[in-house]
Amino acid sequence: MRLATLRTESGTRAARIVDKHRAVLIDDFSDAGALLQQPNWRHVAAENGPGIDFAPTDLAPVIPRPGKIICVGLNYAKHIEEMGHDKPEVPTLFIKFPEALTGPYDDAEVPSFNAETLDFEGELAVVIGKIARHVREAEAAGYIAGYSVINDYTQRHYQKRTQQWHQGKSLEKTAGFGPWLDTEWQPGPALTTTVNDEVMQHAPTDDLVFTPAKLVEFISHLYPLEPGDVIATGTPDGVGHARDPQRYLADGDVVRVEIEGLGAIENTTRVISRSLSSS
Amino acid sequence: MRLATLRTESGTRAARIVDKHRAVLIDDFSDAGALLQQPNWRHVAAENGPGIDFAPTDLAPVIPRPGKIICVGLNYAKHIEEMGHDKPEVPTLFIKFPEALTGPYDDAEVPSFNAETLDFEGELAVVIGKIARHVREAEAAGYIAGYSVINDYTQRHYQKRTQQWHQGKSLEKTAGFGPWLDTEWQPGPALTTTVNDEVMQHAPTDDLVFTPAKLVEFISHLYPLEPGDVIATGTPDGVGHARDPQRYLADGDVVRVEIEGLGAIENTTRVISRSLSSS
Repeated sequence: MRLATLRTESGTRAARIVDKHRAVLIDDFSDAGALLQQPNWRHVAAENGPGIDFAPTDLAPVIPRPGKIICVGLNYAKHIEEMGHDKPEVPTLFIKFPEALTGPYDDAEVPSFNAETLDFEGELAVVIGKIARHVREAEAAGYIAGYSVINDYTQRHYQKRTQQWHQGKSLEKTAGFGPWLDTEWQPGPALTTTVNDEVMQHAPTDDLVFTPAKLVEFISHLYPLEPGDVIATGTPDGVGHARDPQRYLADGDVVRVEIEGLGAIENTTRVISRSLSSS
Repeated sequence: MRLATLRTESGTRAARIVDKHRAVLIDDFSDAGALLQQPNWRHVAAENGPGIDFAPTDLAPVIPRPGKIICVGLNYAKHIEEMGHDKPEVPTLFIKFPEALTGPYDDAEVPSFNAETLDFEGELAVVIGKIARHVREAEAAGYIAGYSVINDYTQRHYQKRTQQWHQGKSLEKTAGFGPWLDTEWQPGPALTTTVNDEVMQHAPTDDLVFTPAKLVEFISHLYPLEPGDVIATGTPDGVGHARDPQRYLADGDVVRVEIEGLGAIENTTRVISRSLSSS
């Protein structure tokens, strides 16, 4: 089953995807995040409702306002090896705020005062379906609603100018997230990121040092995970900042992140002329 | 005016504090955060309503579920100087999640598997009162609803075992926050942190490299700040981890953070016996 959040004339609505252009509205819920708050969301989502045609740009971020978006640092085993690092014993965690999200086919609109060293990070996203507190790895699958695709869009200078990455990881409306939440897909198939159709990242999604189940165990021992919370599981090698020469994003660049059998997001960076400190 | 969130028999309610034991309920709003969503919250909060007596433990975290809690790293000028560091050019930002908050007189309950190297950080908290996007420092005061007190409670080993501090900064229900939001108090008066009545931190709250107004300018150029969002402005010298010998918190330790003329919070650490991965 694939769940999405669709923009309609009466605001956003949770929806079950039928095919590429057709969905069934889950009318009582304003978005897929609100739907996941219902303990019986799987049952509710499977019910019949009004059918609707949709275009890619009707898709809002699949969970528009997650309570938490937890991002994982270096996590792809092959990338860690080829960089000569030891495998980490614990995951590195940092945070993106919901304000950073944008729809899976929306533009990433960056004011010109922030528009340097912009970079992409294609990632597999885990969406939580049930409150998880002190959960064991072996039981973690039951707390995962499904998977989605996210671009952990990054301003590299901001990320690196202090010790803490957060300020470069949460620019408003930059991180494409969607196109939907798939409740059946399982990690393994390849993630591919392209910029203007040129392949930049390509890696199997099961080459993770910390699997989704391990991440749910680790994080849920720090604080509870709640329905609609998102874990961005880290990016494989090939980001623009690490290339030679470096390849940052500029106005008009199209970033597409596709995970086989799961879906694709595609966001064009638009630099909006704006001087610092004006509103 | 002082605004708080009170626990009542019918759930939490926003309230205006009259004195140490007396408040007026702002009955239409479940907490002070919900009240701040109203553009005319100052007017609504000043209206008459049912009076109520309250005890310190009736106080919930003043904003129970802020959309964002942004914490600032090294920010006290004297502490930076005496450590021999240069003054930073930009603030260091990291994140605490709302799940980490606890009431101003509640216990900080830490499961035993997390109960090592626990530490306090007394801080001045800024609460946002109006949506702020690309705001200039000179205009920032108009976006601040008021000030409060927060303990940026920290697990030092978790903070330092990876490059990113977040995982040591957000343990569930550890960070006392309150007792209220004061809309008139202004930075300057001293912050004092004691552990079991012994003074650990003592510093004027206007010795900041990045003032509240500067922080609103800086952060609002990354992403919008919304009503009820919180900025924890950083801690002065004297934390347990930096003392010789180090002074970590154990079961029964009482941490009190008081800011003159603003208020005090007091939280006792309780270590709850629990083995890893059990629920």
